[in-house]
Amino acid sequence: MGVTEAQDLRAQIEALQARVEILEENAPEDRLALGVMSGDLDYVMAAFIVALGAAAYDMEVDMFFTFWGTAALRDPQKSVQKDALGKMFGAMLPNSAGKLPLSKMQLLGLGPVMIKEIMKKHGVKSLEELLADAAEFGIKIYVCTMSMDLMGFKKEEFIDYPNLEYVGVGTFVDLFSRAKQCWFM
Amino acid sequence: MGVTEAQDLRAQIEALQARVEILEENAPEDRLALGVMSGDLDYVMAAFIVALGAAAYDMEVDMFFTFWGTAALRDPQKSVQKDALGKMFGAMLPNSAGKLPLSKMQLLGLGPVMIKEIMKKHGVKSLEELLADAAEFGIKIYVCTMSMDLMGFKKEEFIDYPNLEYVGVGTFVDLFSRAKQCWFM
Amino acid sequence: MGVTEAQDLRAQIEALQARVEILEENAPEDRLALGVMSGDLDYVMAAFIVALGAAAYDMEVDMFFTFWGTAALRDPQKSVQKDALGKMFGAMLPNSAGKLPLSKMQLLGLGPVMIKEIMKKHGVKSLEELLADAAEFGIKIYVCTMSMDLMGFKKEEFIDYPNLEYVGVGTFVDLFSRAKQCWFM
Repeated sequence: MGVTEAQDLRAQIEALQARVEILEENAPEDRLALGVMSGDLDYVMAAFIVALGAAAYDMEVDMFFTFWGTAALRDPQKSVQKDALGKMFGAMLPNSAGKLPLSKMQLLGLGPVMIKEIMKKHGVKSLEELLADAAEFGIKIYVCTMSMDLMGFKKEEFIDYPNLEYVGVGTFVDLFSRAKQCWFM
Repeated sequence: MGVTEAQDLRAQIEALQARVEILEENAPEDRLALGVMSGDLDYVMAAFIVALGAAAYDMEVDMFFTFWGTAALRDPQKSVQKDALGKMFGAMLPNSAGKLPLSKMQLLGLGPVMIKEIMKKHGVKSLEELLADAAEFGIKIYVCTMSMDLMGFKKEEFIDYPNLEYVGVGTFVDLFSRAKQCWFM
Repeated sequence: MGVTEAQDLRAQIEALQARVEILEENAPEDRLALGVMSGDLDYVMAAFIVALGAAAYDMEVDMFFTFWGTAALRDPQKSVQKDALGKMFGAMLPNSAGKLPLSKMQLLGLGPVMIKEIMKKHGVKSLEELLADAAEFGIKIYVCTMSMDLMGFKKEEFIDYPNLEYVGVGTFVDLFSRAKQCWFM
């Protein structure tokens, strides 16, 4: 093989390296991004059950809570000073994970009580226990600041959670751009 | 070209092969995974219409039915022995695809009747026909066993479908990890 | 290095090129596909806020409006001749983005009024303004023709939007097959 042929091979390898690099940069990471907009007990629980399932298979999981979903992260023990509108919203929306309604069969409040009883009977964890597990698995929770503004929620009234951040929609875009899967519920 | 240069080229090619192999292993397959949690006629129909559309374009389609969605797969002709709670749930939830409510304009039961009439008029298939098509296209249906436990549903009361499996959330995680797209509705 | 070794290297490079080509062909594009089935103000707004966020990060965004979602794109100033069923549906469904209900706290119509007041106060854009921004960012809107048929909607009653197309479910499948992420809400 002559020098020109060797140079040609080298050039082809370099071209391939550049293409592989682009593929690697754009390849989705082993991450799951969940946008939780629903504030219904059944959907929030489903989000955590899937999140924990994915984390058990070593996926990185990011959960972005927005709109009604943010109410699931309020701590009923914490109270904050608010203006009239904030107080009204605060009173109308659930004050914690324990107070979320069901999307179906709410039955004037009986539905969630029944579902929780049945879950307990079948050894399914409560939302509060799922949250504790999520913290242990290193699942990251992001709270949408625009939603907090709209609903008059303050950082001081959210639960203590090791990996919780207050972010804008740009962070969510960044999270799902890198994720293998993202869904919004 | 000397021996060292040839060895160098070979080493570079091998390094590239290893990187391409990793990319290939992690590349999403041509699969669509649908998590059907809603038990509303409109959402379940949308799931099947998209599933059949994807199958027509040669995508593999996996449908995971959970929570309220499982009720869409019950066969009204089959009855099973249940305890009191199971009986109650069985009676409160739709007993088949034909009994699903609408997410909007339910109108005390008139909405679904109207929608079905209009769909027929426009040559849109009914949910029962979509299910038959899905079976023919080889679309796989997975029923969430945790949801079955919660709602007291037994395997014996589900429809006959050639590709139906009863699975846990881990299977769903595996399905969507390999899929090109997954959504949850 | 002899001639056979050079030929061998060349063959290996060619094999790699073929594999990289397949990876490149199947690599998802930097696109976001959103299926908007919900006709609720909060979900449609969320779709546009995410769409604009993604567009700001230079992603291409395709929005497919189907079922109840199509009502958000009606122009209240435009009226068309319809048969009895079409008139009834036309009257029952919102006639524009400005008339969408909320998924929660509808409060007999008070909810949307309140939310809009609060959004204005916090400098959050209205749905009409988000639509104008979407047009400017080149976000493409697709309207599901099957849904139009079902609801008796005519092309003539939809808003003027620079990038609006009337398409079937096959187009949606094509859009999400190429997208990095797709979700359905």
